[in-house]
Amino acid sequence: MFEDRKKRTELSELGEFGLINFLTKNIVLKNSSTVKGVGDDAAVINYKGKKTLLSTDLLVEGVHFDLAYYPLKHLGYKAAIVNFSDILAMNAFPKQITVSIALSNRFSLEAIEEVYSGILLACDNYKVDLVGGDTTSSNLGLIISISVLGDAPARDIVFRDTAGKGDLLCVSGDLGAAYMGLLLLAREKEVYKSDPTMRPDLDGHDYVLERQLKPEARADIIRLLNDLQIKPTSMIDISDGLASDVLHICSGSKLGCQIYEEKIPIDPATVSTSKDFKISPTTAAMNGGEDYELLFTIKKTDYAKIKDNPALSVIGHMTEESSGVNLISASGTMVPVTAQGWDGLR
Amino acid sequence: MFEDRKKRTELSELGEFGLINFLTKNIVLKNSSTVKGVGDDAAVINYKGKKTLLSTDLLVEGVHFDLAYYPLKHLGYKAAIVNFSDILAMNAFPKQITVSIALSNRFSLEAIEEVYSGILLACDNYKVDLVGGDTTSSNLGLIISISVLGDAPARDIVFRDTAGKGDLLCVSGDLGAAYMGLLLLAREKEVYKSDPTMRPDLDGHDYVLERQLKPEARADIIRLLNDLQIKPTSMIDISDGLASDVLHICSGSKLGCQIYEEKIPIDPATVSTSKDFKISPTTAAMNGGEDYELLFTIKKTDYAKIKDNPALSVIGHMTEESSGVNLISASGTMVPVTAQGWDGLR
Repeated sequence: MFEDRKKRTELSELGEFGLINFLTKNIVLKNSSTVKGVGDDAAVINYKGKKTLLSTDLLVEGVHFDLAYYPLKHLGYKAAIVNFSDILAMNAFPKQITVSIALSNRFSLEAIEEVYSGILLACDNYKVDLVGGDTTSSNLGLIISISVLGDAPARDIVFRDTAGKGDLLCVSGDLGAAYMGLLLLAREKEVYKSDPTMRPDLDGHDYVLERQLKPEARADIIRLLNDLQIKPTSMIDISDGLASDVLHICSGSKLGCQIYEEKIPIDPATVSTSKDFKISPTTAAMNGGEDYELLFTIKKTDYAKIKDNPALSVIGHMTEESSGVNLISASGTMVPVTAQGWDGLR
Repeated sequence: MFEDRKKRTELSELGEFGLINFLTKNIVLKNSSTVKGVGDDAAVINYKGKKTLLSTDLLVEGVHFDLAYYPLKHLGYKAAIVNFSDILAMNAFPKQITVSIALSNRFSLEAIEEVYSGILLACDNYKVDLVGGDTTSSNLGLIISISVLGDAPARDIVFRDTAGKGDLLCVSGDLGAAYMGLLLLAREKEVYKSDPTMRPDLDGHDYVLERQLKPEARADIIRLLNDLQIKPTSMIDISDGLASDVLHICSGSKLGCQIYEEKIPIDPATVSTSKDFKISPTTAAMNGGEDYELLFTIKKTDYAKIKDNPALSVIGHMTEESSGVNLISASGTMVPVTAQGWDGLR
């Protein structure tokens, strides 16, 4: 085909974000109703009064999930949650989703019902309506594509590229647990493959498994910030790992950042599991991804409002762009942060 | 896995629409902003003043397209067009899309650029903004998922389930050509496989090939109806074939229908190609699909406004539900219409 006649650039050379940038760099917006297109967690569309928010995610078997250890209902739940999280990261609430599923004949109706039951449970929990979709066959395994709409008053919407110098960098909940859950499930799959009579050794790992298999989107944090009368100066959800997502805020806002390793919130269960795998918990937090916590910046003057809140941690502050994005270890060593998050195109 | 422990229902027993009905029958809408959810070409969402319309489609390699004869740019164009057509079929105009693509390493960057260039060309031609998306790897081939938003004043929106008894059934353009184009491409692929030195014999088939490889969505017809001051009483786009889509209007509206075979608009090029394949042109129109023409009903009193318009054909009229949905042949024979459109789940 024609690609053989042209210079061939490997997709892996660009990575996912590079590819998206490359593909979308020449787009010119044409409708006055399009306030914000490609480049943030969701698109902003002005359909009178409130803004409409739209985002989409695609989950592919063998890339985003392994059905050997991922229950179908959990998969459906997670597919919805990752979309809700994108809207929440704009400081808005998800309202509607469409669900497209492609599947092969190896799936029974009951199997797809399980996927849907997970999606619908997530919709119930987050008060979101499933409003459409598409179902088709696939020679290729299971594929789930969800698009989500949300709305918010224009003044409430928070972008990722609007952090200010000196702002405090904050994160909700704790990080790294979802990745530990993934390693645990992958290990038990290998054990099972070598000896199917072995019982999975998952006892005592409830927390990290739940973080992997039934993640939640932090609607509660958006409500909390609202109650505290804090509007973040920038925000993103942590899907690819703290490293990758803080770099999005920094590059978008044309700022640097200092993150203090000891301030990164990590659950004791994550620390304990990370020892089993001989992985630093900081590495899990920085590069593991799939935590779906919110990463945001606030003005220094809002510090008093959050400093005693156990659901929120201040982990650093925004600096000049020329200072770079750095992780400061407990001993004071400074390490530049680079994106090593999971890369869907390698 | 768990599905082995339960009764197993084969997906092929339900078909695509049966599956969607089954999966969505228990959905209860929760937001007052959700005016219309699953069940039409697009969801209707009331975000103040104008309504927001949202629809989505998933295209899977090996199911919806064969890259052996489908140029990537054309594929991108078509992927966008099928979504635009869904919004137009609500008597509204598409305004924004999100594009999610999953692809394997066998595709180069230049290949994906071709897909995108087709999508962006369609966006230019129809004044639609690409506002987001997702790109990921796939072990599985190429998958394109597009979601589309449009808007319209509430009073303009036309559903598929609101036809009235005695209304005239109309169709834009002509039918069956896209299917003939598909058969032609599939035949030439077989010839090529058996002897790669053979040149494809596609001369003189420009029209049916273009209808398959570069379909258009009928925005012009929506503008025409508006100019003629006709608001259809119901409307749908013909994606699965006239038979399947007229059945949607009839079952939704709880009506029957009589379609006159000789009134179905079929291009001479379609008739000519259908002879080569020993297929009746009516069969191509009824069951071929992918024409993306608009099928709609109007009040009898609007007949004078359209009767001399070459872009529109009156092909029948709506009857009582108990009369059934029937095709009347030139000789007067009445044949019940059943859906034999392409079924993505078989």
